[in-house]
Amino acid sequence: MPDSDPHVTFDRSRQTRIGLEEAVLAEPKTDAQIAAIVADAIAEGRRLLLTRLIEAQHAALARDLRERLDYCPLSRTAILGPLPRQNNQPAVALVSAGTSDAAVATETERVLSYSGLGATRITDVGVAGLWRLLRHEETLRRMQVVIVFAGMDAALPSVVAGLVPGLVIAVPTSVGYGVAAGGRAALDAALASCAPGVLVTNIDNGYGAACAALRFARVTGGG
Amino acid sequence: MPDSDPHVTFDRSRQTRIGLEEAVLAEPKTDAQIAAIVADAIAEGRRLLLTRLIEAQHAALARDLRERLDYCPLSRTAILGPLPRQNNQPAVALVSAGTSDAAVATETERVLSYSGLGATRITDVGVAGLWRLLRHEETLRRMQVVIVFAGMDAALPSVVAGLVPGLVIAVPTSVGYGVAAGGRAALDAALASCAPGVLVTNIDNGYGAACAALRFARVTGGG
Amino acid sequence: MPDSDPHVTFDRSRQTRIGLEEAVLAEPKTDAQIAAIVADAIAEGRRLLLTRLIEAQHAALARDLRERLDYCPLSRTAILGPLPRQNNQPAVALVSAGTSDAAVATETERVLSYSGLGATRITDVGVAGLWRLLRHEETLRRMQVVIVFAGMDAALPSVVAGLVPGLVIAVPTSVGYGVAAGGRAALDAALASCAPGVLVTNIDNGYGAACAALRFARVTGGG
Amino acid sequence: MPDSDPHVTFDRSRQTRIGLEEAVLAEPKTDAQIAAIVADAIAEGRRLLLTRLIEAQHAALARDLRERLDYCPLSRTAILGPLPRQNNQPAVALVSAGTSDAAVATETERVLSYSGLGATRITDVGVAGLWRLLRHEETLRRMQVVIVFAGMDAALPSVVAGLVPGLVIAVPTSVGYGVAAGGRAALDAALASCAPGVLVTNIDNGYGAACAALRFARVTGGG
Amino acid sequence: MPDSDPHVTFDRSRQTRIGLEEAVLAEPKTDAQIAAIVADAIAEGRRLLLTRLIEAQHAALARDLRERLDYCPLSRTAILGPLPRQNNQPAVALVSAGTSDAAVATETERVLSYSGLGATRITDVGVAGLWRLLRHEETLRRMQVVIVFAGMDAALPSVVAGLVPGLVIAVPTSVGYGVAAGGRAALDAALASCAPGVLVTNIDNGYGAACAALRFARVTGGG
Amino acid sequence: MPDSDPHVTFDRSRQTRIGLEEAVLAEPKTDAQIAAIVADAIAEGRRLLLTRLIEAQHAALARDLRERLDYCPLSRTAILGPLPRQNNQPAVALVSAGTSDAAVATETERVLSYSGLGATRITDVGVAGLWRLLRHEETLRRMQVVIVFAGMDAALPSVVAGLVPGLVIAVPTSVGYGVAAGGRAALDAALASCAPGVLVTNIDNGYGAACAALRFARVTGGG
Amino acid sequence: MPDSDPHVTFDRSRQTRIGLEEAVLAEPKTDAQIAAIVADAIAEGRRLLLTRLIEAQHAALARDLRERLDYCPLSRTAILGPLPRQNNQPAVALVSAGTSDAAVATETERVLSYSGLGATRITDVGVAGLWRLLRHEETLRRMQVVIVFAGMDAALPSVVAGLVPGLVIAVPTSVGYGVAAGGRAALDAALASCAPGVLVTNIDNGYGAACAALRFARVTGGG
Amino acid sequence: MPDSDPHVTFDRSRQTRIGLEEAVLAEPKTDAQIAAIVADAIAEGRRLLLTRLIEAQHAALARDLRERLDYCPLSRTAILGPLPRQNNQPAVALVSAGTSDAAVATETERVLSYSGLGATRITDVGVAGLWRLLRHEETLRRMQVVIVFAGMDAALPSVVAGLVPGLVIAVPTSVGYGVAAGGRAALDAALASCAPGVLVTNIDNGYGAACAALRFARVTGGG
Repeated sequence: MPDSDPHVTFDRSRQTRIGLEEAVLAEPKTDAQIAAIVADAIAEGRRLLLTRLIEAQHAALARDLRERLDYCPLSRTAILGPLPRQNNQPAVALVSAGTSDAAVATETERVLSYSGLGATRITDVGVAGLWRLLRHEETLRRMQVVIVFAGMDAALPSVVAGLVPGLVIAVPTSVGYGVAAGGRAALDAALASCAPGVLVTNIDNGYGAACAALRFARVTGGG
Repeated sequence: MPDSDPHVTFDRSRQTRIGLEEAVLAEPKTDAQIAAIVADAIAEGRRLLLTRLIEAQHAALARDLRERLDYCPLSRTAILGPLPRQNNQPAVALVSAGTSDAAVATETERVLSYSGLGATRITDVGVAGLWRLLRHEETLRRMQVVIVFAGMDAALPSVVAGLVPGLVIAVPTSVGYGVAAGGRAALDAALASCAPGVLVTNIDNGYGAACAALRFARVTGGG
Repeated sequence: MPDSDPHVTFDRSRQTRIGLEEAVLAEPKTDAQIAAIVADAIAEGRRLLLTRLIEAQHAALARDLRERLDYCPLSRTAILGPLPRQNNQPAVALVSAGTSDAAVATETERVLSYSGLGATRITDVGVAGLWRLLRHEETLRRMQVVIVFAGMDAALPSVVAGLVPGLVIAVPTSVGYGVAAGGRAALDAALASCAPGVLVTNIDNGYGAACAALRFARVTGGG
Repeated sequence: MPDSDPHVTFDRSRQTRIGLEEAVLAEPKTDAQIAAIVADAIAEGRRLLLTRLIEAQHAALARDLRERLDYCPLSRTAILGPLPRQNNQPAVALVSAGTSDAAVATETERVLSYSGLGATRITDVGVAGLWRLLRHEETLRRMQVVIVFAGMDAALPSVVAGLVPGLVIAVPTSVGYGVAAGGRAALDAALASCAPGVLVTNIDNGYGAACAALRFARVTGGG
Repeated sequence: MPDSDPHVTFDRSRQTRIGLEEAVLAEPKTDAQIAAIVADAIAEGRRLLLTRLIEAQHAALARDLRERLDYCPLSRTAILGPLPRQNNQPAVALVSAGTSDAAVATETERVLSYSGLGATRITDVGVAGLWRLLRHEETLRRMQVVIVFAGMDAALPSVVAGLVPGLVIAVPTSVGYGVAAGGRAALDAALASCAPGVLVTNIDNGYGAACAALRFARVTGGG
Repeated sequence: MPDSDPHVTFDRSRQTRIGLEEAVLAEPKTDAQIAAIVADAIAEGRRLLLTRLIEAQHAALARDLRERLDYCPLSRTAILGPLPRQNNQPAVALVSAGTSDAAVATETERVLSYSGLGATRITDVGVAGLWRLLRHEETLRRMQVVIVFAGMDAALPSVVAGLVPGLVIAVPTSVGYGVAAGGRAALDAALASCAPGVLVTNIDNGYGAACAALRFARVTGGG
Repeated sequence: MPDSDPHVTFDRSRQTRIGLEEAVLAEPKTDAQIAAIVADAIAEGRRLLLTRLIEAQHAALARDLRERLDYCPLSRTAILGPLPRQNNQPAVALVSAGTSDAAVATETERVLSYSGLGATRITDVGVAGLWRLLRHEETLRRMQVVIVFAGMDAALPSVVAGLVPGLVIAVPTSVGYGVAAGGRAALDAALASCAPGVLVTNIDNGYGAACAALRFARVTGGG
Repeated sequence: MPDSDPHVTFDRSRQTRIGLEEAVLAEPKTDAQIAAIVADAIAEGRRLLLTRLIEAQHAALARDLRERLDYCPLSRTAILGPLPRQNNQPAVALVSAGTSDAAVATETERVLSYSGLGATRITDVGVAGLWRLLRHEETLRRMQVVIVFAGMDAALPSVVAGLVPGLVIAVPTSVGYGVAAGGRAALDAALASCAPGVLVTNIDNGYGAACAALRFARVTGGG
């Protein structure tokens, strides 16, 4: 959003201070606000990351802006500008329980990519079919950070945290209906995990989990 | 409680109609009401099962009544009169996640006993240490009814239901603090289970789970 | 969903392990994902069951796929391929309180059908007109499994469980407004049932209730 | 409480205006406040009704005050002074589901008594044993006001309201554990009743239900 | 809905038993179900009352059916057939706090009309401008039943119940935003009323309040 | 709305009594009701303030009405008629945490404007980049009333109230997803502020915060 | 608490920065911590204000400390040292609905006293007996700040705010049972007030309301 | 707990698998169970860590067991056996907002100590007096892991996460009353943090935060 807009004070010193660039949370913004933000970044030659950019918002952008964005509808993220060279330090895995949880995992993957951190994806390993997860046990035990995406009963973070020594971050998702709708059941299950040391983000907060992994990377010399 | 008490209408036809004897839920009753109920059963030569009889209530009974009861403080159940011969038809397992969940599992075990149905106990097999559960996989796969007791994140019913073909009943428990306190997180996780066909009782309702197993027994010719 | 899709790991050993085929929960999936899943099953000659396939999703399928599906808009289920021969072992009744609860009951009926288990339907017997239910008392007392579908105050499972010896499964529904909206009031009433041994599923989880009945069938030699 | 207490403004015109005397809600008051209120009423020769006077508060009163009160520990009500002549116009029934609900029903009965209105008690007729209620159907159908006390699933008000033409008032009670604890499940079930025209009070509000019956009496010429 | 529809068991004995005709709750029904219900009533020459018939549902009816209905979009009610002669016994007032609450009050007014009971409307008398209500004090004090419709803080029922001797029924409404959205704040305020004897319905349940008034009418010889 | 509409009783004495003109909450009203209200004010030569007038409602107004309104889509407010001369007594600041919170702050600003009270805007100073806020510390310390708009964790009011001596009013906003959705987390954080004397409005209630500032102005001789 | 205690960093610059001295919230502290805090203040000749000091905590203090405190058990506040000269600028009223709400009002009164600000008390004027409040209308209309204390339905702040031009602060209290227990119903009703400009504190936060009044005093030259 | 106890299956392979020793959560256990666990560890020469051992439980231990334990009543932790040599790799800070939050921070400190990891304590730096925190900014910016303990509005984690590049873990505490009671407000505020990458544990879960830091240590070569 251009500096002339009286409603925005961009936080350009964030990168310097805490090592994380600011992303733009698109969903609550108007089409005009998003267009101004993208146009401004192009004009200034800056890279840009938008999260929760829903398809209708993406479609509402003028074609010249839209074509400059690498947009992923599954994760609702858009990236402007080139990705840095990817490395795999620290070793990060993204583990998701069901097909629908994969959308949030992809958001995390894209945010990490934007900052040059690669990650290993393990998909569709919900605990109702435990053998699917156990196939990956050795891989998971080598990871420094394991981010687990699960909705409904969110049993997966507990099982994973009982198998691996690394930092375990649970991202509860809003997948499901009845008591699962909105993700509160998954959130509470993750917070109440019987496995020691599980850390939790807000529901569907793939962006936040990525930022935590980037903090890990920064203070351990990786990323 | 004597028939002369104007506050009680005993439901003596329940046994005939649905095959389950009525148990006395002691906790909300006064000491005097409990004493009258026990004395009345002794006078009539009836057996009696009391649930949620807390230690102070048990201690408040006159010694002659108290000595007639087989009281289990862990499960807060008391039984008056002899147990029937135990059989193991249908095959029922009681699986509990943590030490504290075992109190509720013992309530179920004692209610089944009171009706003559034996059960296999498997204890302390929470998913944070998955190898503890997997040791019992073959036993569990032979069961017709598996009752799973778990508080906190209640991940165990989902894992069990993914391993066994039998009927799976989850009993969420109120064990835990923070979001786990009171058992709502465990209840919602059990209801939102990602494994197909998990059935759920109220929080800490070991009595209800036993009654369901007895219904199973009755209509399949066992129990 | 084709094996080449990186977001899905199909659980083909489920049938072997727990005796239940995996169904596809359509609602959170994209149109493209659903189309791929259906096309893949046709190509491989497999049967397929989709649940919570909303009308817009069904309409979005290409005509050749759509015509292969037996779609029921009331229950939002779609079946690909032939139904097995139906039997009635164990004896299962599906009892619903109001017109709107019948949609969830139909989901259960269709899932049972898909696995070859017939069921007796009893409809519109809410407790506000008790005589409607009592007409069916004898039928209900002969059942091994009675699944009760009720929203709003969900009083029906308690009344039924007081009348019959069989296993009683309550499926709370999201029918209603005000405190009833979303089904939490019905769920809590079913969990707090004053009748002994009522088992409960998640709100609107007709699929889960069917799976529980199929588990019953499998371990008692029926189904 | 004496007029000299700066914390109380007694509402002596209530009786004139809306036909209901003010009762003293004792529970949140200090022992000294309660003693002052009772002493003051004795000094002025006024009758007095205290509700939710817990046993410890009653025991803390000086003996001369305590002996002047007709105290009922079950309903936690105390009455000072003579009861008026009782009549039965309008016809009111108090119907309670379980033993524990009877405490709240007794509160209502005592408040009605204090104002001279008699009531028919029907006890322990929870819907899990429907035959107990149906025995009273004819009596209930003759009533003008039926007040139903039920905790847990609160299915009884719906069943009663489907049987009788009179005004039906549900008083949800806090009896129960797990989701039933505190009475919210019972309250929501009563509010969501599938039977038409059920009216509801706050949880455990036996006093409020009595006041509603007294309003009915006053505007129809009874009471 | 025609008797041939397997999903409906019409409760035609309700009128005989409890003196209230069954209304059709339209909102959760499909367009086809509503059309069948209306057509069936026309064919049989029966009157019919539909509640919560939203405008899109009304518009979806075939023209010949739609023209037979007296439809009120504000209250979302439709009436088929003639209204009975109106009387004013008992004396009923409908008091609403804000413009938006009036929609629910109109639902009550129309349901009463359908059964021949007239009512006095008092509108827009929220407590923030107390003088508006106090102008009507004398009228209100002559009423036997006062139904109060209020959302947001629902302070109006408490104030009214402190002014009048008649039966007071609070209908909380879902008007408002933030903590008021959905009506739970209004519901809880009405249940927690500091005025004695306030009775409460579900949120937005204008139909239920009317049924309660009709029960009052029936057992006091009016209506 | 014209006086002839039976659903509205305009509160024209409000201005005299409490010094605040009544605004029209547009959102729950029908297009016809809004049109009548605007037309009526034009006919009578009165000024008018509408809040929560969503874009579709504004677009639905006839062109001649629409053109008379000064409509702000960001804050969803519309003003009819001239603004009074603005003054800055008392000194009021409007401080908002994020871009999206600014919409609610603009509602407050417009309501103040309508009554002639100017305000200082400070935007995008969320606590995640504390230096943005601290730049304004001196300005804020000179204010008599500081209104803080924040969603999500609503940490800003606590930080501000620790920096300034003036009256601090927190307006929680519904910005955010997961646990932040709807604004309850922000509301509770503001109410639980660790800084002394923070006052709180309903979620998104920019209108209410403005009214509080106008009350301040009136009783201190400003505004 | 002495500076040597590693668990406390006293905020002695608060008085300078925001014009409010820090009070000590006693309830969550241990007896030893409270004794150290009091002893330390005596040693340094500082005044001290403790809030939420429950009777058992007060009784646990050594006699020499206890005798130095002016302790009020009703409001659970203790003051060490002399009170400043009281003035009445600005004009503040403390209005409470019921006897029990008066405890919180007394907390506010004592905190104001400690800072030298007098206040007018109006007690027991709940809306169920409106005439009690209306007697004080003229007094209330002269106030600059009116703090209203109410539990249960918290209807009083709305009624007061409709009568007076001054700043209205609602302090919801936890008085009541059922849905009123804990004060959430009162809080939500106050937040959802239909009267414009009502500001709200946390439940039972008499201290916070006093601090807000002191902020008002400070920036308007009074206090 | 001895292996002979049928209610416990000790998880002795946990240390090997995930690098964390199992701690004993004492609160839900009986006095006898705790005594057996301690005696067993002494007999086997094992170290032992007990968490949430309340003072009454500690006092109930036989003197010879009690004297072997290093018990800290503030944090309710007990340690049996010698502490390992402490190192400070990784660099961990424990930052707490108020005096009461320090109890949970001490639990974390003791658990870290038990595993040989030192930590920097920063106490009483709640955001209401921001200068207290800012004094420590440089120290905090050098940390690899910053664990923030805060109840009430939990604004501190957001402010800290905006200042430092390290991993930030928020531990919400149950300190506070009204909406803050139980810690849900603090939990939700921490989850909804406006600062990027804040990770959250269950309420009061100082043990879990320590385990997360130990996971960090293990996979980065420290601890």
